This record gives sequence, structure tokens and C-alpha cells, in this order.
Amino acid sequence: MDINEKLLEAYDRAGNHSGVSGERLALRLSLLSEIGRTTDGGSCRIGYSHEERAAKDLVRGWMVEAGLAVREDEAGNIIARLPGVHHHLPAILSGSHVDTVPNGGHFDGALGVLVALEVVEAWKETNFKPKHPFEVIIFSDEEGARFNTGLTGSKAMAGELDMEQQQQAKDVHGVPFEKVINNYGLCAKSFSNAKRDFKDSKAFVEVHIEQGKRLENANLPVGVVSGIAGLGLLKITFTGTAGHAGNTPMNDRFDPLTAAGQFLYELKSLPEKVSSTAVATVGKLQVFPNGINVIPKEVELYVDIRDIYEESLQQLIDLVIAKASESAKTQAVEIQVEKKRLGNAVLTDQGLQDLLLKSVEKNGSAPMVLPSGAGHDAMILSHHLPMAMLFVRSQEGISHNPREWSSLNDCVHAVHVLKDFIEALQEE
Amino acid sequence: MDINEKLLEAYDRAGNHSGVSGERLALRLSLLSEIGRTTDGGSCRIGYSHEERAAKDLVRGWMVEAGLAVREDEAGNIIARLPGVHHHLPAILSGSHVDTVPNGGHFDGALGVLVALEVVEAWKETNFKPKHPFEVIIFSDEEGARFNTGLTGSKAMAGELDMEQQQQAKDVHGVPFEKVINNYGLCAKSFSNAKRDFKDSKAFVEVHIEQGKRLENANLPVGVVSGIAGLGLLKITFTGTAGHAGNTPMNDRFDPLTAAGQFLYELKSLPEKVSSTAVATVGKLQVFPNGINVIPKEVELYVDIRDIYEESLQQLIDLVIAKASESAKTQAVEIQVEKKRLGNAVLTDQGLQDLLLKSVEKNGSAPMVLPSGAGHDAMILSHHLPMAMLFVRSQEGISHNPREWSSLNDCVHAVHVLKDFIEALQEE
Repeated sequence: MDINEKLLEAYDRAGNHSGVSGERLALRLSLLSEIGRTTDGGSCRIGYSHEERAAKDLVRGWMVEAGLAVREDEAGNIIARLPGVHHHLPAILSGSHVDTVPNGGHFDGALGVLVALEVVEAWKETNFKPKHPFEVIIFSDEEGARFNTGLTGSKAMAGELDMEQQQQAKDVHGVPFEKVINNYGLCAKSFSNAKRDFKDSKAFVEVHIEQGKRLENANLPVGVVSGIAGLGLLKITFTGTAGHAGNTPMNDRFDPLTAAGQFLYELKSLPEKVSSTAVATVGKLQVFPNGINVIPKEVELYVDIRDIYEESLQQLIDLVIAKASESAKTQAVEIQVEKKRLGNAVLTDQGLQDLLLKSVEKNGSAPMVLPSGAGHDAMILSHHLPMAMLFVRSQEGISHNPREWSSLNDCVHAVHVLKDFIEALQEE
Repeated sequence: MDINEKLLEAYDRAGNHSGVSGERLALRLSLLSEIGRTTDGGSCRIGYSHEERAAKDLVRGWMVEAGLAVREDEAGNIIARLPGVHHHLPAILSGSHVDTVPNGGHFDGALGVLVALEVVEAWKETNFKPKHPFEVIIFSDEEGARFNTGLTGSKAMAGELDMEQQQQAKDVHGVPFEKVINNYGLCAKSFSNAKRDFKDSKAFVEVHIEQGKRLENANLPVGVVSGIAGLGLLKITFTGTAGHAGNTPMNDRFDPLTAAGQFLYELKSLPEKVSSTAVATVGKLQVFPNGINVIPKEVELYVDIRDIYEESLQQLIDLVIAKASESAKTQAVEIQVEKKRLGNAVLTDQGLQDLLLKSVEKNGSAPMVLPSGAGHDAMILSHHLPMAMLFVRSQEGISHNPREWSSLNDCVHAVHVLKDFIEALQEE
């Protein structure tokens, strides 16, 4: 079934008021989803690809039609500005991205851009003029499928990109950064000029799908984000002694998989020791040589550790390393740990969070606050101006997958919450 | 360094008496090792390959030179017979195989054949005539690298091969059994005629490298095998719910890797509950989808379970399944278990074992009895006549690897133990 049809089929039209149109939002989600459509029904719009460009061009057309002044910065970010009644007031910013993972869904990123644009459409229909300027932004290459990094556009805009490192980057096909950017129609040399001053900006708010099941479990259409988790990544290698499965007595074994087993079992209880929002996951594990009748020589695994509080995240990383070392010691095998920090935890602005919760309540939903385990462009922006995020319920929590879905009722609900929030923020 | 040189370098020549020649044994091990030599310094002589044929031909020449009457049966087994002083007495049989795993060592199989032949050489030099006929046998395709099975020659000789299944087998390159056998110079249709009657045979004794570290740890050159372990193989699949590592709270996870971890950790303590010779090993484990930031959907692992006692082996299989089910239940994930039995446990003949131990003591070593975790041709023969096995110390327990090694001192020691054992058995 076509995305547009599927969205409309379950739409109750209750949100079609105050200038908001569910039909317009559905059609736009559907038209965007066709760019880079995969045989699985997903979308493939890698950062700085022709598909990402086509998606930005499509939205750019709608932005211009809506009366916004659109410009592209040196990193390919699209910035569409609605003037405020009072030109001198700082702008309110909202947006997300339109690139995807290789076989991604149709809501991650795209929804945040289109919801912000729908607010502008609603104001246009009802002839509402905001006091503050309002900007809808499409950030480039958020997913990072191009250079295995991510948040490229928002980092460039925030001046947080290490340009020396970036100039040396090669994409997943080995094409150098300079060539990728050139093929995209931009110049690598002037890329860093995308850096912008946020002195004239009041706040950034991003609408995004939850990519988890907390809202679904709570039976709520939207939720307010408390913070975005920082990420610690550990690569742990347990090294023991290989041997024949039949000819090595149990008491003469140094089996790294037994040590890994002990660690995997005990890992589950560690996050709750530091914080209720912390999580730790082993998703990738490999055994060497991985033969049925060979006691393993080595087990290599990755631990993904997250929390929205820096202090407890650091505590958890230390606890995990201690637990792994203890397991290795118990089983008399060697252990090697490599630690990487990928992004610090950030909390959303308390004032914006409260205002967003009020807007949620005004729209008839219970106010729920939840953490974001995944990184978002808002995380980078938060280093420079007050930031808030609104999550939209994800069906079954599925994301980065063609089956990623949010109902049109929930999407339209998010438009109203965002619209009321921005209107309230104007009055502050 | 050349194998012959390396063997002789550490040889103390103490075993060069009673007609036994360490130099002859070393040269033969070395010449055999050159057939199918790999770039790693290993040997590759897959069952029913030209290399296995060349190895059999080389040994066959030595057998004829030593005065043995040599024949090849319909399964390619080489049977070399020394007549007894009393023709009517049942023959004593000894031997092993000359095929290897794809990049194997130079002692597994080859040593057992050459040690038995060296006994004949020693008798020839000292002009000793055994009362009973003595046969040196080379079994075909013991390792099973050709059809992923193994023990093909000994099973054919024992009439234990399921010929209907065998006729349908394809080798690892997809070549049908009939064609493989034909290329080897034999006829698949008459393959089953290799079946022989063991009424006229008194005993079978196989010398083999230990492929473990028990003898090395005990600082002993040889040991007497108590039994050959039966093997139970379990394929266990834990199935949970995949999810985003960052957006799934710890208390809403159904993580199959946590269940697998609990199982792996607790598996270690199960074998000692049933028997001191039992072992259980997970050597192969795979995680799906195996992404760093994805809670796994599935973990698939294999448990290799062995013991020389059928009853305790069966008990251990049941205990392992119960433990896996308990782990799955604790972590609220699904479990699926596939059970395969590959060979029953067999005990060696008590009388032969005692006689072999006496021969070990006579040659100045402490008598050590140890189980065999791996399968051997002797396992099949034991179903039809009394069987014994002598293990030779393996350096570091390494086997199925170019680094597989046993010192020439130990190999010659084994010749004397086998020779004295057969001479004593003549008198019984």
C-alpha cells in the first residue's frame, strides 16, 4: 500500500483545525518517502547523496511556497526563515534532517522537518504572524551513514566540526570528503563557513520519533524529552587458551566464553545501580575461532553504555569495566578494554521543558517526560542555545527499518503541541 | 627446519634397542609429512584424495619391504599381514589412518600406522616370529574432511556404514560419493564388500597422539586410554526481542544474549555433577543481527558434550538442556533445542588395558589411564572385538594444526610399549 493511503486510512481528522492539515502532512511524508525508495519499501538517502539533495529540494519548494526565505549554508544545511513581526527579536528554531540510514524508514528526521513546516502552513492559513522570527532547518547528514560519523550538518553549523579530521575523512566507498562534497555541489574548503552565531536565536526545538516503546507502553501520542544520552562504547576482548573440546578436562580450561558469559549475565543489573535512565547493551559479539569442537581462544564484544546524566554515565562505564575485569579474573583469562566516548550527555532546558509539557496538557494528553537514548541534532544545538525535544510515539519502537511507523493522528498531534508551544514561547 | 632434522635434534637414542630404530621412524614420519605439505608447514591429505592415496602408497612400499602381505579392501583400507608361527591363531590388529584435516599436523593418524609398522621392523631385525598373525591397517578417511562425516574406512570394514545414505553423500565441493570413489580408483557399488568378519581377530590396538595436555601436565610420555567419549551435540537458539540499545529501558528488554550469558556461565559447573571425565563446551556462537547498538534478536550456539560413560553422558545432555531452559525462562526469552547424538561412548577392554599398563610400567613410566575425548577408528572396531588404545604425549595439546608435535623420544617409547604389549598378548 502507498504510504499516503496507509497514513490516511487510520486518520481520525480530529487534528484538522487551526489551519493544520493532516492530509497535507501525509502527502508530504509520502512524497518524501519515494526518494531513494528501496525494494524493501524503505528509504535510502545517505548524507550528501543525490537522494538527500533531492529530498531537500522537494521540501525547499514547499518552504518557498509557504512564504519562507530559504538559503543553503556551506555545509548544505537548509535554513528557511519566516520574518517576525518584531524583526529585532531573537529567532525560534526548529527542524531535523531528511537523510536516512541505508534501508531506513519514512519518519526518522523527515517528520521533524515537516511538522515544523506544518506550523508555518497553519499560521499562513489562519493569518497568524509570530512576533519572533521562526526558522525551519534541515540539517545535512545526521545519520552518518556516509562517513560513519553523523551530525555533520549541525556540528558544522555549531562550529564543532574538527575540519582537519573531516578533510581527511573517506566515505564508506573510500571517496575522500573533498570529492563527496564537491559532487554534492559544495566546496570542502568553505565548509567551515557554515558556522553560525546563535546570539540572535532564542531556542531550538526538535520533533522526532521516539525510536523506542515507552510512549506506546504508556499509550501516549507524544512525550517531552528530559535529556539526550551521552554514549560510552567499550570494546572488550577476553583472551584464554584454545583447546580440543573433547581432550581438555574442565579443570584445565581457560575459556574466554565462560568469562564473557559471566559478564553478559551480570551486566543487566548494573545500570539501575547508577540511574533509572541508564542502559547498557552488548549487541555485537564474536567468538574466535568459532569452531564447534574448539574451546575458544578469544571473545570480542562491544558494550554500548548510555545515560542522560554525565556523572552516572561515567559511573556506569567504570562499573562495567570493573565487572568485566572481575569476570576475567574469576575465569583466569586475560582481558583488554578499549574505551571510546561518543558524545556527552545533555539535559534539555528546564524552562522549555515545562512550557512544552503545558502544551502537551493543553492538547489533552498526559504529560510524560522521557530520556532520549539516541543522539539528535538537538544535542549539538544545546551546547549553544536553550533546547527542547518532543518525541512522537513509534509503533513497536521500530526504527532504522522500513517498518518504522507513527500514526498520522500522532503526527498531527505533534504539530499542534509544537505550534502551541512556539506561540506560548513568543509571549515569554 | 625439516621434520626429520627437528625430530632427530632432540632424540636421546635411548630407545634404539631390541631392533627399534628412532632414525627409521623419524625419516618415515618426515617423508609422509611431505605429501600434501601446505604453505603453513602442515599437511593436507583429505580422505579419498590423491594425497591420501600417495601416502598409503608410500607406506605400502615399506610394508612390502618389511615382508608383509598387503591388500587393499573395497573401501581403500590397506591391510598388511605378517603370518603367525601358528596360522590358525586369531590375528592381532593395529593401525590408524594417514588422511588429515585440511591444514593438519604430521602425527595424528600417521604415528599410529608407523609405530605398528616399526614393531614389525623390530621383529624382523631381531628375527622374532610372533605366534599370532599380526596386521598393520591403514583406515581410509578417518577425519571426515571429505564428506563431513569421518571414520569411513573403519565403518566400512565393520559393516556399520549406512550405504544408502553414503551413496547419496556429496563431498564439500558437491562431488557425489560415487564419483569421488571412482576418481580414487575404487567402485562405489562394491564399497560395502569391505565388511570383514572379526571372528579370526584377537584384538585391535591403536596408538595415537593424545591431542590434549593431560600427559604433558603429568610429565609422562604415554598413557592408556580408558574409553572413547560418546558425543552429544546441542544446537540451542535463544530468541528475544530486538530493540534500540539507547531507547529500550533495561526493564523492558527480552535479551537473548543475557540468557545465553547466564547459560554459558553456569555450563562450566555441570560436567562434574555427572562424572570426572565428562566435558561440555560451547565453541561456536553467533549473535543476530550483531549490531553494536541493537539489542540482539537471536543467539545461536552449539554445545559439544562428551563422556566415556553412556549413562553419565545422557545425564549431562539432560542437565545442559534443563539449564538452558532455565536461563531462557529467567530472562523471559524463547528457546529452541536440537539434539544430535554422534557416536556412543565405548570403554576399552579391561584385560587389554591392564596388559597395556603392565607394558607401560615395564618400559619405566608411571601407568596413567586417561579418557579420549575425540573419536578414533578404534571406537568402531571396539563394537566387534576387544580394543585398546595407547596415547602419546602431544606438545601443548595442539592438534589439527601444523604445530602438532610429539617428540621422537615419546614416539619411540610408544613403539616399545606396543611391541612388549603385543608380545605379551601372544602368550595369553
